[in-house]
Parts: sequence; structure tokens; C-alpha cells
Amino acid sequence: MSLQTPLKPRKTPRQARSTATVTAIFEATFQVLLSDGLVKLTTTRVAERAGVSVGTMYQYFPHKEALLYAVLEQYLYEVVIATEEACVRLEGARLGEMADGLVHAYLEAKLRHMPGSRVLYTVAAELDTDDLIDDIVRRADQAIERLLASASDAHFDDLPTVTFAVRTILVGTVREVLEKEAPASSLAMLRAQLPIMCRAYLMAVSSS
Amino acid sequence: MSLQTPLKPRKTPRQARSTATVTAIFEATFQVLLSDGLVKLTTTRVAERAGVSVGTMYQYFPHKEALLYAVLEQYLYEVVIATEEACVRLEGARLGEMADGLVHAYLEAKLRHMPGSRVLYTVAAELDTDDLIDDIVRRADQAIERLLASASDAHFDDLPTVTFAVRTILVGTVREVLEKEAPASSLAMLRAQLPIMCRAYLMAVSSS
Repeated sequence: MSLQTPLKPRKTPRQARSTATVTAIFEATFQVLLSDGLVKLTTTRVAERAGVSVGTMYQYFPHKEALLYAVLEQYLYEVVIATEEACVRLEGARLGEMADGLVHAYLEAKLRHMPGSRVLYTVAAELDTDDLIDDIVRRADQAIERLLASASDAHFDDLPTVTFAVRTILVGTVREVLEKEAPASSLAMLRAQLPIMCRAYLMAVSSS
Repeated sequence: MSLQTPLKPRKTPRQARSTATVTAIFEATFQVLLSDGLVKLTTTRVAERAGVSVGTMYQYFPHKEALLYAVLEQYLYEVVIATEEACVRLEGARLGEMADGLVHAYLEAKLRHMPGSRVLYTVAAELDTDDLIDDIVRRADQAIERLLASASDAHFDDLPTVTFAVRTILVGTVREVLEKEAPASSLAMLRAQLPIMCRAYLMAVSSS
């Protein structure tokens, strides 16, 4: 699925009606991904499932790659927005509370589309997503660094390194569990242990 | 690259001469992966680079998938063997020493084939590796659990959960950094922060 064509949707949905259509198309994409898999997914099949005409579909998403990119993009932005909102909400809190709140927000945002979020790792690997990922990482790092700098009970000498480490723990551990056909117990263990990991790491590298 | 054919090499290299041939083929595979990429790699091109005849190549690896599977398999076993050896060496040590030694062994084994290890994540995603990964994970968990149980200065109430968490931190964070075209500074940060993460987590969930 190498991409020679632009990935942006042709139309940007500005009206309520268009937004509803795009939402239905995205929802149908998840369903087709889960029932038929990435290889068999076609824009025609998604249009059918979404109950929109093929003409309407092509107005927004001229080909499969554009559709998948848009679904992935929306998913990633949802996750980073949830992370940013948590960071703003937690500003000035104590370090332990920050770690728990940040982990909770990130994990729950990732899980909102379960099991669709699992298949999106495969989608991402097939598309050229470097610029998108760079943008997401930059936004997440900015929010986390600002949050950590505001801790009421702790101070960090090297904020960029600590921010990098916290983001890497979050993204890496969640992906490691979600991407596999892991048993439900793995998800439960991650939910319980990830806050402890982040809190313990942050305490270890901070001075009060 | 869907696989209908058996992935095991036809011949198992038992003699010194055969082992040398297979080593040359594996080395050439890394070189071709890095210079030409996964899609353009062919067994013929690898045979040329390795300086072996196409006939010899096909005796061991009848097709591209068998070759890639064998390279991935050897890499993963090298990493898990290094991990197991570190666990045996660290048995009975103090918790902090264990965390540092385990992280060091895992990270250095993963980096031994840099930048080849990066491209192997792509190879793994293209092959049916569920059974192989299951076996690797089982061996790693067994070694880590046994190590943690032997700590001279700490005790864990729920060893399987702590083992799962430590393995997930190791595998998840290292992959998150290695898989991207990350700057060298990211690798340096991981080298410095990963031991702190593991040590801090283990201290947080242990009792003395």
C-alpha cells in the first residue's frame, strides 16, 4: 500500500450533515476492518456498511488509503486531545496524582475504540504516517512537559528527558499489550501496573 | 507475504561448513534488507551478496519467507538467550543490581544488530510469528520470574504480574525507540532512563 496519491480527504466536513456522514463512514470502516480485515477492505464495502452512496464516499475518500489515513488520524488526534485535556486538568497537582491521571486518560482514550485500536497499529504500519506521528508526539510532549513543570511537590532538572521517558513508557507498554491478541488479564495487569510504573519512575527522577 | 508454505529451513546446519554458510547468508540478508528494503529483497540477491550459489541457497531456504523467518528466529533467540544468561548470572543479587543487569543485557542484545534490528520489526509484522513469539515470551518470563524470586533483599507477593510488567516495560519501550527513525539522543535517553524505570517499578511493588 505505497502511497503516490495525496492522503487528505477531498472535502473537509464543515456542515453537521457532512460530519454525520463522515462519522458513519468511520464507524463502518472499523466494522469492516474487524469483520473482513485490512486486505479485503474496500471503499465500496465501507460505503455499503455505512449506508452512503459510492458517489458520496468518493467525494470524501477517493481511495482506500485516504480513508484509512483519515480514520487513523482521527483516532490519534482523539487520543492526544484526551491527553492534553488531562494535562491541563492536572496542572499544579501533586506528582502521584499527575502520574495516575495522565495514565488513566491515555489508556482510556486508547481503549475507547477497542478492539478497533488493535487493528489500527496494522493500518499505521501500512501508511506513510511519519509527519502525522511527529505532530502527535510533539503535542503530547508539549502537554506532558508543561504538566510536569507545574508539579506542586516536585522538581525535575532535565524535563525534556523525563518527558521523553514518560511518553515512551505510556506508548510502548500500551502498544505492547494492545497489539497482541493478549488475554483480558494482560489488559487488567496493564491497567493496574502502568500507573505504578509511571509514578515510581517520576518519583525516582524528581527532587522535592 | 501470506504464508501457505512451511517456514522451517529444509536443512539444519549440523556441520561447521554449513554453519558458516548460514551465517554468511544471514549477514547478507541484513545487508540487503538495509540497502534494498524488504520488498525488493530476493533470495537470489541475498545469495549473490553472501557469495553462495543459488542452488546452495535453495537447499537451506527454498523461498524468501523461509529465509526471513529464519533470520528473525535467530535474532529473537539470541536476545532471549542473552536475557536468560543475565538472569542466571544475577541470581541472588540485590534488586537494584538485578534491574540494571537485566536491562543492560536485553538492550545490548537488541542493539547488537543495529540498524538491522529496526527492519526486523517490519519483517516480523509480515510473517506469521505467533508461535515463535509465544515461545520467546514464555522463556523470557520464566527466566525473569525465577530471577525476581531469588532477590536477596526483596520479596514480591504477585510474581507473575510483576514479571509481566517488567517484560512489558523492556519490550515496549525498546521497540518504541528502535522502530522509529529516532535520533541518537533518543537511544542515549533510553539507555539512561530504562534502568531507572525498571528499578523504580520493582522497588515500588516489592516488600523487603
